[in-house]
Amino acid sequence: MATSKKKSASSKRPAAKRRAGKKYVYNFGGKTSEGDGSQKALLGGKGANLAEMSRIGLPVPAGFTLSTEVCTYFYDHGKKYPATLTKEIDAALAATEKVMGKKFGDLKNPLLLSVRSGARESMPGMMDTILNLGINDEVVEALAKKTGNPKFAWDSYRRFLQMYGSVVMGVEAEAGEHHDPYEVILDAAKEKAGVKIDSGLKVEDLQEVVAKFKALIKKRAGRDFPQEPRAQLEGAIGAVFISWNNDRAKVYRRKYHIPASWGTAVNVQAMVFGNTGKTSGTGVAFTRDPATGENVFYGEYLIDAQGEDVVAGVRTPKPIIKMAKDLPASHKELLKVRKVLEKHFRDVQDIEFTVEEGKLWMLQTRNGKRTGFAAVHIAVDMVKEKLIKPEEAVARIPAEDLDQLLAPIFDSTAEKKAKRIGKGLPAGPGAASGRIFFHAEDAVKAAAKGDKVVLTRVETSPEDLRGMIAAEGILTSRGGVSSHAALVARQMGKICVCGASDLEIDYNKKTVTANGVKLKEGDYISVNGTSGAIYAGQLKTADSEVIQAVLEGNKKALKSPTYKKYAQLITWADKFRKLGIRTNSDSPEQVRNAIAFGAEGIGLCRTEHMFFEGNRIDAVREMILADNEEDRRKAVKKLLPFQKKDFIGIFEALDGRPATIRLLDPPLHEFLPHTKEQQKELAKKLKLKPSDIHRRVEELHEFNPMLGHRGCRLGIVYTEITEMQARAIFEAAVEVQKKGIKVHPEVMVPLVGFAKEFELQKEIIDKVAAEVRKENKLRATQLKYQVGTMIEIPRACLTADEIAKSAEFFSFGTNDLTQTGLGMSRDDSAGFLPHYEEEDIITTNPFATLDQGGIGKLVEMGVKLGRKARKDLKIGICGEHGGDPKSVQFFHRAGLNYVSCSPFRIPIAKLAAAQEALKDKAK
Amino acid sequence: MATSKKKSASSKRPAAKRRAGKKYVYNFGGKTSEGDGSQKALLGGKGANLAEMSRIGLPVPAGFTLSTEVCTYFYDHGKKYPATLTKEIDAALAATEKVMGKKFGDLKNPLLLSVRSGARESMPGMMDTILNLGINDEVVEALAKKTGNPKFAWDSYRRFLQMYGSVVMGVEAEAGEHHDPYEVILDAAKEKAGVKIDSGLKVEDLQEVVAKFKALIKKRAGRDFPQEPRAQLEGAIGAVFISWNNDRAKVYRRKYHIPASWGTAVNVQAMVFGNTGKTSGTGVAFTRDPATGENVFYGEYLIDAQGEDVVAGVRTPKPIIKMAKDLPASHKELLKVRKVLEKHFRDVQDIEFTVEEGKLWMLQTRNGKRTGFAAVHIAVDMVKEKLIKPEEAVARIPAEDLDQLLAPIFDSTAEKKAKRIGKGLPAGPGAASGRIFFHAEDAVKAAAKGDKVVLTRVETSPEDLRGMIAAEGILTSRGGVSSHAALVARQMGKICVCGASDLEIDYNKKTVTANGVKLKEGDYISVNGTSGAIYAGQLKTADSEVIQAVLEGNKKALKSPTYKKYAQLITWADKFRKLGIRTNSDSPEQVRNAIAFGAEGIGLCRTEHMFFEGNRIDAVREMILADNEEDRRKAVKKLLPFQKKDFIGIFEALDGRPATIRLLDPPLHEFLPHTKEQQKELAKKLKLKPSDIHRRVEELHEFNPMLGHRGCRLGIVYTEITEMQARAIFEAAVEVQKKGIKVHPEVMVPLVGFAKEFELQKEIIDKVAAEVRKENKLRATQLKYQVGTMIEIPRACLTADEIAKSAEFFSFGTNDLTQTGLGMSRDDSAGFLPHYEEEDIITTNPFATLDQGGIGKLVEMGVKLGRKARKDLKIGICGEHGGDPKSVQFFHRAGLNYVSCSPFRIPIAKLAAAQEALKDKAK
Repeated sequence: MATSKKKSASSKRPAAKRRAGKKYVYNFGGKTSEGDGSQKALLGGKGANLAEMSRIGLPVPAGFTLSTEVCTYFYDHGKKYPATLTKEIDAALAATEKVMGKKFGDLKNPLLLSVRSGARESMPGMMDTILNLGINDEVVEALAKKTGNPKFAWDSYRRFLQMYGSVVMGVEAEAGEHHDPYEVILDAAKEKAGVKIDSGLKVEDLQEVVAKFKALIKKRAGRDFPQEPRAQLEGAIGAVFISWNNDRAKVYRRKYHIPASWGTAVNVQAMVFGNTGKTSGTGVAFTRDPATGENVFYGEYLIDAQGEDVVAGVRTPKPIIKMAKDLPASHKELLKVRKVLEKHFRDVQDIEFTVEEGKLWMLQTRNGKRTGFAAVHIAVDMVKEKLIKPEEAVARIPAEDLDQLLAPIFDSTAEKKAKRIGKGLPAGPGAASGRIFFHAEDAVKAAAKGDKVVLTRVETSPEDLRGMIAAEGILTSRGGVSSHAALVARQMGKICVCGASDLEIDYNKKTVTANGVKLKEGDYISVNGTSGAIYAGQLKTADSEVIQAVLEGNKKALKSPTYKKYAQLITWADKFRKLGIRTNSDSPEQVRNAIAFGAEGIGLCRTEHMFFEGNRIDAVREMILADNEEDRRKAVKKLLPFQKKDFIGIFEALDGRPATIRLLDPPLHEFLPHTKEQQKELAKKLKLKPSDIHRRVEELHEFNPMLGHRGCRLGIVYTEITEMQARAIFEAAVEVQKKGIKVHPEVMVPLVGFAKEFELQKEIIDKVAAEVRKENKLRATQLKYQVGTMIEIPRACLTADEIAKSAEFFSFGTNDLTQTGLGMSRDDSAGFLPHYEEEDIITTNPFATLDQGGIGKLVEMGVKLGRKARKDLKIGICGEHGGDPKSVQFFHRAGLNYVSCSPFRIPIAKLAAAQEALKDKAK
Repeated sequence: MATSKKKSASSKRPAAKRRAGKKYVYNFGGKTSEGDGSQKALLGGKGANLAEMSRIGLPVPAGFTLSTEVCTYFYDHGKKYPATLTKEIDAALAATEKVMGKKFGDLKNPLLLSVRSGARESMPGMMDTILNLGINDEVVEALAKKTGNPKFAWDSYRRFLQMYGSVVMGVEAEAGEHHDPYEVILDAAKEKAGVKIDSGLKVEDLQEVVAKFKALIKKRAGRDFPQEPRAQLEGAIGAVFISWNNDRAKVYRRKYHIPASWGTAVNVQAMVFGNTGKTSGTGVAFTRDPATGENVFYGEYLIDAQGEDVVAGVRTPKPIIKMAKDLPASHKELLKVRKVLEKHFRDVQDIEFTVEEGKLWMLQTRNGKRTGFAAVHIAVDMVKEKLIKPEEAVARIPAEDLDQLLAPIFDSTAEKKAKRIGKGLPAGPGAASGRIFFHAEDAVKAAAKGDKVVLTRVETSPEDLRGMIAAEGILTSRGGVSSHAALVARQMGKICVCGASDLEIDYNKKTVTANGVKLKEGDYISVNGTSGAIYAGQLKTADSEVIQAVLEGNKKALKSPTYKKYAQLITWADKFRKLGIRTNSDSPEQVRNAIAFGAEGIGLCRTEHMFFEGNRIDAVREMILADNEEDRRKAVKKLLPFQKKDFIGIFEALDGRPATIRLLDPPLHEFLPHTKEQQKELAKKLKLKPSDIHRRVEELHEFNPMLGHRGCRLGIVYTEITEMQARAIFEAAVEVQKKGIKVHPEVMVPLVGFAKEFELQKEIIDKVAAEVRKENKLRATQLKYQVGTMIEIPRACLTADEIAKSAEFFSFGTNDLTQTGLGMSRDDSAGFLPHYEEEDIITTNPFATLDQGGIGKLVEMGVKLGRKARKDLKIGICGEHGGDPKSVQFFHRAGLNYVSCSPFRIPIAKLAAAQEALKDKAK
């Protein structure tokens, strides 16, 4: 994540304050601040940016931030606070009162406060917030008097009671209760008053509601709602810290790998009110379109409303452009603020503002979450606008986001023919087809069964998070681009259409109806998150624009802004990165794709995949079933022409680039048929008895095939297999060379644990190479090759110096290294790995992202020892971690020469490699 | 192995010689020598000891040694010799001629030579020897004239031709030829002459044999036998070096872990002749009985014979005591030499001598190979005799040899009742019953099928080695205590009876007949290697004397010399060793045995074994089949009383010693029935549908169970299992404590890879301990325990510092650490491990002896990092390597606190630990 850390900012802070004891509370407001934007770790994202906005003169309601250190202290000390905290809060509150010219709990000009969480990284909606804090039975009267607006005062009181009661005092809908008890009271009041919306209630109605809320709280919590403002404040602060460890916050942290140890800050800030009448309002906006990246001011607002009304998606807000008519002065000021913020923070900003009686207040700014599409567009645009440098553009795009640019879109012909049933706001670009499910838990269940799901809801809330993660696409009938659904879609790169008001969703009947078409749970629906269109049924997909441009050379796609910006980004990444990028490819087709994506060679060509093609599997089986070396040699010989042909195709496709070819790796039983029927059939073909085949299958059965007779252990016992494969490689090389195409074969021996294993295999390979040279009358320089090894079991890392004496290159096989190093089978770990993530034993699946603390140490050891024995040892990695950004960055730091990944992960690997190289520069 | 290295000896060597260039040839003889007994690595065992004997004034025929460096040079340089070698041989030969007063190839007083191999460690019969070298058509006449004994001269010539032809020129029995071609000629000559034994042949007969031998050689080798003595010498030297790499030498080296890189020396020595008539003879002897260890001069000799006649077992030699009558002066001198040698070498000596015309010549001395019984007896006796110190006694007994003292003997009642069919020389103590096989390859095949085998032969030769290794016992009808069979039995600790002349063996009919009883191949026979008795049929065995003494307190056994010496040895070992010795025991019975052997506690108590006892497996299965936590808790609760009872028994048996108890380790599917029948039965018992059980079995199926859901991964997902086990341990501890018995439970969490895994399990264990204390109103000091972990996957070694922060002890689980660290399943490696040993990829099975170069590094890393985090961390090892001497010695060096092994390996572990501790002292 990019941060807006600025050295100049922190150097302006008075040194004395930094040196003074442990400081827990930081003031801001009145165009000055004790903290600044660089202090996200200490003040949280929200707190740091409030301080920064205040520091650069933007209108921020005064307040103070309790640092994240209070949170960690709180959890480290059995939920107690530092001894000095109360005093610091006293002082900070006094300063806030001074700036705002109001007093907390005052009966003349009372100051109301908001209390909000604010972690280092934004965790929207995950933790608790309390607004309008400081009202009680007396203050409400003072507020009514001071504002001359009793309705506003009593409405604020009832809002405060509702929030405080549920969040701090735990009075919420109970098990078996289907409706929120506060809403039940409110609905009864509205019915009694004969009005439809909250704002229709009169002062007396609201007073009755307040009385009923207080009674509800007392009854359920067993104690009175606290009248004392300072007690209210303490309760609210505690509730926010507690909410750091609620279930949904934990789920969120796991997904985004946010350590529990970071803790959250708490921001206490003077309330300003967007709900005092027609000259007030509140809104949220992005300085650019966060879905597409287009450079337009993008947001929405509500007149006479408090902030949560916008975000909650209850009232549908108006597009920001309309503010020019409703609140012209504030709109003008906001446009100025937009420019100031982008220039200052040099990134797209996600802001919250309130207009109180015509005065604009900035409540929040932060780097805007954006889709992968938007990230690429914005970063490349900002370079063009000279706001940032190419290095920054490369550094700030999460590498994984590039996946969105490669994801399929709807086939245009199919889309034209499809039954369009509605349109919503395009909040997450891409194409998703799936079965309709209305509830998160149903979506999770269906996805677990392998169904593709479109989670279809009126609106989403944090409780739906697991369902949203499980779904292919998200569709809502209510809520704008700032709604929860839109926000999560942006952050997770989910395909999303929101606020599709054509849809009528009936949760009870489990149906969605739109333009006369009624679909029920389990039916297919398709959503185009780029255009907002919604279709009944399943739609055919097509390659994304980027893929059409890269792999198919499609002219229209080549001219598309998305491809052009993608290409620009990759050009920069190629310039900055130090790591080579190769591909794991087993066929000429895959190799061509990989080269189109910029692969510099093959890092892993698995020869066994070729064994299954056509009827050559028969020869493979004949080889395995042979009783003696002679018969085995005969069978192996039949495979030679096939393998040779394969390699010719690959060498030609590579056109001079190097190819690391791994010798046969899997245990032989993988090639034999396991059902009786198949064994019978094979017996017939090979003129054997089925019982012979059955016996051989039994003989080859292994308890732990992962740790069995495979890898070089095959080539050592059955040297004829290694001989055949080496011959196929070298004969193919000679043949392709004759066509004037250069060939660089790198023969890779798998699963080496003992140096001698490698030496024995190398001896055979060298012998075959010498034979092939002799047969073709070539000098050594006319058929060059290297012999190296896969480093994939711990012993190889521990003895890498011995192995490197004869091995000319290493390639880390991190899949198997992870399995052996952790003693954990990838196939069998599903029973406990999810539990491990929940228990925070691991932060990420070690088969997806390299376990740096464990397996990473083995890799580092292997590199160090290997280079000790052979200074210029070429080292790569060809496990699946080669396409994972965090792992790629680790491999850069570990000093590897290249990573190898599947063709479609190449752009991501390039970007990740460039980002890590840039970090070196920054040092 | 103990060496007789003496610093004073090497310091006497002239410094100038050691500094001069590279010296390859070392003279000895004439009561002086260029080398000495400490130079076994350079001169080989034979060469070094010839030099040493000469140095201390014993009568050694002069000669010289080509050092082992010639051998390594030879193999490193495509079988070429160092350039200076010929010159050095010239000079050495001249010196030899001078001492002996004869000249090589001379036609007046010719010197004949022997050429013998001599590796650093003795490899009896594995390499080639040539005797009587230097004879040709002219020298034979000169020899006849000089000795006045033409028959002796011509007999020497024919012996030389036979040896040289077969060894150097490769003229031997060919494929399909059943008899040795030289023997065929010799037999024909004897028939023609009408005599039965070789010595019956007259000069003319021998001359005819010589002519026929020369013709045979020319015909088959395609060239003449070389007449030039120097050419003969070169051929013989080359043949010995080549024989270093023959097949049987390779097999032998693999078994005894002798590196190929050591090479052999070649000893060229003046021939002396035991076959010149009645005043000559030759013999071999041990300064004490190498089978029992008794302090008696022990050996045999033949009058009028050359050395190989004794060793080959062709003529049955006479016991050495009879020499006092046949050759009284030489016998008297030999008794003196016996004393000199034992005093000088301070160990039992295995000597060869020849008497030529009444003069005694010493041809060889070396530390005598002995059985485990003899090793213990001799070492303890020599301490009593003040020849050596207890430290030396402990240091020189191969720890593994103690196994022989624990091996079963025949039940005395059974032996009395058994049908005794013969008696031979007791050459390898112990009791063996097995099926009769007459040929090595048949023995190997039968043993591979699981049969116990007694290899029964007229005599054995090096070709039979594999069969001897495969057999339980060895029985020969011919050959004395110095025969090949006796020698191998001593060295390998095989049970052996040799020279049982009652037996008539018919290889063709595959029968053995003795005292009227005819047994055929496959029938059972029993041999008592302690008494020499042979029985038809299978005999019941009983515990050895040591076990009867240790475990049963049998009074007779307690008084037996073997037990008394064993006990003395263990007392010394206990005094010297630093490593603690614990036991792997799962039941009170095993614990009691282990304590009798001197275990200081339990290092590994596997709790899952208890799960299978009685009908508790039903509760285990109920637990596994439970659908939810509640049902699972119910089932687990049923197990609690069982487990508690188990632990009570164990704590009581331990009587205050510590107990490391491992929590449940194996994957759950190991407890479920896998056949349909069993599943049906279980379903009935648990009132479930068989399909439910089948489904659960399928669910739990794992591709690689070794790397699956097991170890602490179970306790983390099913915390109730850990809770139950912890409760059983602590409740048992409380109960046993109440009886006044101290209890030290050490709860061990298995398969930890991440520190957090351990922390979570420790939290549960601590919680349960607190509960049990509270329930029993105990203070913390009244129920003490430790919580530690098994270190058995590579990641645990790599992150041992993190784990040791909360783990109070480590125990290396080297079985699993070997499997994961090598990526090699113990169960599945049988397909390639034997091949790996043949190819010298590994020297020992890594599951038997720790792979120090790989897994050892992980152990060292774990120790280092663990102690970094916790200085006084207690570290043990509980894999099967805990009972393997080489591994135990490694663990001592690695700084472990204790090793844990099965009860019967404790004496071996103690001895090995003491030996390594003594090495520290020696430094």
